[in-house]
Amino acid sequence: MEINQAFLNKLSLKEKASIVSGHNFWFTYDDSANGIKKIMMTDGPSGLRKQADSGDALGINDSVKAVSFPVSALTASSFDRPMMHQLGVELGIAARAENVSILLGPGVNIKRTPLAGRNFEYFSEDPTLAGELGTAYVQGVESQGVGVSVKHFAANNRENQRFTSSSDIDERSLREIYLLAFEKIVKNADPATLMCSYNKINGTLNSQNKRLLTDILRGEWGFDGFVMSDWGAVADHTAAIKAGLDLEMPGKGEESVQEIIDAVNDGSLDEHQLDNSVRRILATVKRWANKSDETVDYDKDRQHQFARQLAADSMVLLKNQNNVLPINEQESVLVIGQLAKSPRYQGSGSSHVNAYKVSVPLDELQGRANVSYEDGYQLEDVDPNEKLIDKAVSASKSADKIIIFAGFTEDEESEGYDKETIQLPDNQVALIQAIGKLNKPLIVVLQNGSAVEMPWINDADAILETYLAGEAVGEATADILLGDINPSGKLAETFPIQLSDNPTFNTFNKDRDHEIYHEGIFVGYRYYDANQRKVQFPFGYGLSYTNFEYQNLTTEVNGTHVTAKFNVINTGDRDGKEIAEVYVANQTSEIEKAPRELRDFAKVSLQAGETKSVSVELNERSFSWYNADLGKWQIDKGQYDIEIGASSRDLRLRESVEIKPVVNRTKRVTESTYVSDLKDRPELDKALSESGLGDILTAVENQSDSARLLENMPLRAGVMIGMDRNKIKEFIKLANENL
Amino acid sequence: MEINQAFLNKLSLKEKASIVSGHNFWFTYDDSANGIKKIMMTDGPSGLRKQADSGDALGINDSVKAVSFPVSALTASSFDRPMMHQLGVELGIAARAENVSILLGPGVNIKRTPLAGRNFEYFSEDPTLAGELGTAYVQGVESQGVGVSVKHFAANNRENQRFTSSSDIDERSLREIYLLAFEKIVKNADPATLMCSYNKINGTLNSQNKRLLTDILRGEWGFDGFVMSDWGAVADHTAAIKAGLDLEMPGKGEESVQEIIDAVNDGSLDEHQLDNSVRRILATVKRWANKSDETVDYDKDRQHQFARQLAADSMVLLKNQNNVLPINEQESVLVIGQLAKSPRYQGSGSSHVNAYKVSVPLDELQGRANVSYEDGYQLEDVDPNEKLIDKAVSASKSADKIIIFAGFTEDEESEGYDKETIQLPDNQVALIQAIGKLNKPLIVVLQNGSAVEMPWINDADAILETYLAGEAVGEATADILLGDINPSGKLAETFPIQLSDNPTFNTFNKDRDHEIYHEGIFVGYRYYDANQRKVQFPFGYGLSYTNFEYQNLTTEVNGTHVTAKFNVINTGDRDGKEIAEVYVANQTSEIEKAPRELRDFAKVSLQAGETKSVSVELNERSFSWYNADLGKWQIDKGQYDIEIGASSRDLRLRESVEIKPVVNRTKRVTESTYVSDLKDRPELDKALSESGLGDILTAVENQSDSARLLENMPLRAGVMIGMDRNKIKEFIKLANENL
Repeated sequence: MEINQAFLNKLSLKEKASIVSGHNFWFTYDDSANGIKKIMMTDGPSGLRKQADSGDALGINDSVKAVSFPVSALTASSFDRPMMHQLGVELGIAARAENVSILLGPGVNIKRTPLAGRNFEYFSEDPTLAGELGTAYVQGVESQGVGVSVKHFAANNRENQRFTSSSDIDERSLREIYLLAFEKIVKNADPATLMCSYNKINGTLNSQNKRLLTDILRGEWGFDGFVMSDWGAVADHTAAIKAGLDLEMPGKGEESVQEIIDAVNDGSLDEHQLDNSVRRILATVKRWANKSDETVDYDKDRQHQFARQLAADSMVLLKNQNNVLPINEQESVLVIGQLAKSPRYQGSGSSHVNAYKVSVPLDELQGRANVSYEDGYQLEDVDPNEKLIDKAVSASKSADKIIIFAGFTEDEESEGYDKETIQLPDNQVALIQAIGKLNKPLIVVLQNGSAVEMPWINDADAILETYLAGEAVGEATADILLGDINPSGKLAETFPIQLSDNPTFNTFNKDRDHEIYHEGIFVGYRYYDANQRKVQFPFGYGLSYTNFEYQNLTTEVNGTHVTAKFNVINTGDRDGKEIAEVYVANQTSEIEKAPRELRDFAKVSLQAGETKSVSVELNERSFSWYNADLGKWQIDKGQYDIEIGASSRDLRLRESVEIKPVVNRTKRVTESTYVSDLKDRPELDKALSESGLGDILTAVENQSDSARLLENMPLRAGVMIGMDRNKIKEFIKLANENL
Repeated sequence: MEINQAFLNKLSLKEKASIVSGHNFWFTYDDSANGIKKIMMTDGPSGLRKQADSGDALGINDSVKAVSFPVSALTASSFDRPMMHQLGVELGIAARAENVSILLGPGVNIKRTPLAGRNFEYFSEDPTLAGELGTAYVQGVESQGVGVSVKHFAANNRENQRFTSSSDIDERSLREIYLLAFEKIVKNADPATLMCSYNKINGTLNSQNKRLLTDILRGEWGFDGFVMSDWGAVADHTAAIKAGLDLEMPGKGEESVQEIIDAVNDGSLDEHQLDNSVRRILATVKRWANKSDETVDYDKDRQHQFARQLAADSMVLLKNQNNVLPINEQESVLVIGQLAKSPRYQGSGSSHVNAYKVSVPLDELQGRANVSYEDGYQLEDVDPNEKLIDKAVSASKSADKIIIFAGFTEDEESEGYDKETIQLPDNQVALIQAIGKLNKPLIVVLQNGSAVEMPWINDADAILETYLAGEAVGEATADILLGDINPSGKLAETFPIQLSDNPTFNTFNKDRDHEIYHEGIFVGYRYYDANQRKVQFPFGYGLSYTNFEYQNLTTEVNGTHVTAKFNVINTGDRDGKEIAEVYVANQTSEIEKAPRELRDFAKVSLQAGETKSVSVELNERSFSWYNADLGKWQIDKGQYDIEIGASSRDLRLRESVEIKPVVNRTKRVTESTYVSDLKDRPELDKALSESGLGDILTAVENQSDSARLLENMPLRAGVMIGMDRNKIKEFIKLANENL
């Protein structure tokens, strides 16, 4: 069956209207008699949430068992493309085995504020990192014959009023920050579908946003899959189809179908537009419909082991004073905190998985080391429990080292609503401070979906950020704490000292109807760097049990293409992995710019004492910015610094390169050219003197009191400095002839 | 002569084209034979700059002598409407005596950043203060039969690339912050003309901005004077006339005229539009043409005395530890600093006045107290001069008190270009720090156009901010230092601790083409308060030689009108004046909002021990915000705090009032109403139960894991929580019937 116009012509209007409306919560239109297969779509990014009852979304946690992998907040900290690809492969295997054709993920939105409720489901504050990891993930899933739905398209950065609030963003920031990850994935991984988000951008609902869904996504990026709505995101089905939204999910039943029929019949919807959506849906369904391959190796135990490895390779060691970590098996260790017993390992909402088997940190540690335990706090009651704290303090006295498991509570981090604080619950802070007073080696293990304030940081000798680590949380945490695995994760987001340091402070969620993106391109480290703010832990930061050095940066420039090579050396006595980050600092363009931007990264595995050479390729886009006036990416001729960092604030190597784009913005002279801009351009001397303007420039320079004022005038205001209009016109003509 | 259509019909196209083109630098079209008088227009806000040679703007400092009044940065610190009115009267007298019909001022733009080169010429970071003082000023000038040109319309907040850069501002901030002062003046003072600024707003040159010059200015505000261009601001004369710009200044001679003739002839300009501009210009010229009254009492000595009084009443005492001020005549005082001898008393550029007579601070102090003098630094060389510093240190040892005169140098503060730092020159800082080490009573007197960083603040016991005080700088400074006048000025702008605390840091002037107003409405204290930033001196702050208390705030609410009454008491032993500031804190609206906004103020003169009652009237606009979605000012029903402050961070009295607007936003239920918003509305119970939806809400609340997620869905996504579409529609119908 070919999905061509002839085929479409055989379909009735009602059939076509049904195809663009979700059949029910999880399936597309079903008409096997006519060769139209229904396919199943299932949440979510970190494991399969296949609902048993397909007609109801209410029982959100009631799905078939599947391995719960670490959330994206943690996997992003791996900075590891091959691991992300393998995660995709495992998810694809699970989906195929469960007869699921499209996996609803990954989520690649930008972490604009630590308060955003869905941060745990997203990768990073940096679009390059999100785009690169998302690409690897998508390629992994689709290598198994299972399609993805990249979500939530786009600028869906808050949960409160997410169905109606408008993300008010300038065009440059939209392109450079909020669309970039989607653009990379569409261009590099050819995803089956995208999922359109609930929110508006600059006043237009995304589900009705033609510019987003058609002009940019298809026209500029060449996307050829279909776009489905987030569940319930369609307000006006006809307007959505016109804008390029193909499939309304879950569909409002007969009403959705009838709306389209009526719209075609009354002429408000051109049937060709409906045909376009039908064609895109059927072509995609055909390509990705489950092949029912019984031989799929869906071994959940093996997947659990992969989840463990991925979690351990992603966890971020934030602090390790006096090498208090790793724990030595001879040491007596006191573990405190109910989260060690009842770990948080995933977020709430549509990504919630009915986990295959959960390993418990306390059990794992007790099985592999000399460990005792105290509650220290209760998860259900955030008020400090003095009795439990006192008991923990007493028990601490006989321990060599103390590990406190801390984190946000379950209902604090969920899809559907945002946080109001990034502080740990009071009872946990009180516990950490009480134990900290003992001045014994104290390790804090964090379970959380997003950045945490640490007013208690000086109480802790070591801090291990495990985010929400998936069902193998116990084994992976123990692997790192005991040193069986050398930590190699780095933060994919900045940890501010306090929430009020974040640029969205006092504006985020303050307006029900509009979320104003005041900070523009200055998101995450781009903001903290530009504003010279101290941070708790910078973007790209993470420790290892060994040490790495960087050496010998060389750069080779070919037009707008740069190859940068450098060596990374493991100078310690343990094997380990280092993430080398490649930043570009634009020293050229006369625009607002971040001090540096991540443009590439490499994860390097190094035995103790080993040196490896790393080579990265930067291309035209690595040096470009989005010129909203011209509606295109622009690369400017001039100097750019290539900075190699162990974090965004630990730059080890730097080289300046000169980029010479093929198409340079010519310095044409116009009536808007400023007098001051004529001064350093000897190539204009001839035109100046031939037009008779040369003397005037000298006269301006000689106006000692007012020279700067007068030079800051354009030629069109030349009358203000006594320039003859005809001479100006002659000069402009001559000047441009010589360029 | 009536300026009606019949009159216009008698004019040739060439005459009309000439009328809308400046005759030369300072005059309008001249055709006395046909009853069209030429009128003269002259800079500027702080004194008359009447050029001798009307055909040339190059010799910017070469004008007839006139009294140089304090710059607006200082006069705004008076918070004194009657004094501003009198300043207008004096300027009107000068203009009339000099045959000038229109005075090019006041400048009422907002101080968005301390770096803006023209800050000295503007009033405040607060639009209410700028608008109120501007209104009094304009009424004063025009009471003398002289017209004004309120400038620079609008959002002209930087000098670099001012002819071409675009001020990119969201609509709400434009209305609430950048247009408000103009709106107040247009509505309350009926100014003769406005001057359109050089810049663009959101990409459109102001001189071609129909929305600004016609829709808002005339359509919404009812302006009936004419709009002239800033000198050289017109890029396309025809486009300007179409947009509502009436008079191109200074005109490009024959070219300007011919452009209009051609445009009418080729149909690109409708002659009726040209007629509108001609009518507005001629009607205004007729009304304001100089009446050549020889009896005008233009006594420059009297004006000089007024300039002295205005300066002294405006100076701001920022610090006065141990009451080191005022100086006692018996004390031996060492004055240090060339600015005491060669004071800076005005800024550079078009507002520069050829001063009538300048009083020198050192001379005044020596005449009235026991004063010796040391240079301490050289104005021409900013490098620290160790020899001069050592000499000053030696001389200091025998003095009872030391006064250092410090400030920016002449070429740092000018129209035409912006500053790059707000630090004092290195030589002055080194001097202050060297003298500070002596631990002797040290007074710093500042001469500057805009906020200054004070890393040396702990070295000074007292700081007197005199800004640029006009030609009576010497007498006025001595009046305050010696206690002949009790200081009563307060800052009309925040002094940040450091420039990087300002929200424009790292973005101001970073883009040649676009100035992005990232901070939105959060300008000045609105930003520092919202972001809980420490500041050096807050908006509205200033000390006195006496003390004031505030008591007995009462409020009376009538719909949207509030009368607030309170007492101010002079509890010290000196007569003095206190500025009482009235802020409104909106506790109601679901929008981004500043913690408080100045809505009124009163300057109260109080003898020692005296109590006065102050009454202020707040109206609907005091409680309104600009709803850009609806394109109108909106007042919301609910709680507002009335705060009475001695500064924006020294709030003495507070009362909460409830405002009940006549037109309340009805809480209509729509498909976009969130489930959570149905919960606290008992009036909806009936509709809920009648439509059969009541049970569903209970079901949602019982979903303990997901309740918050599900409640954050609008009715149109009701299918997600199992709501029947027909029931939803029935409910919406019933709910709105009952409202």
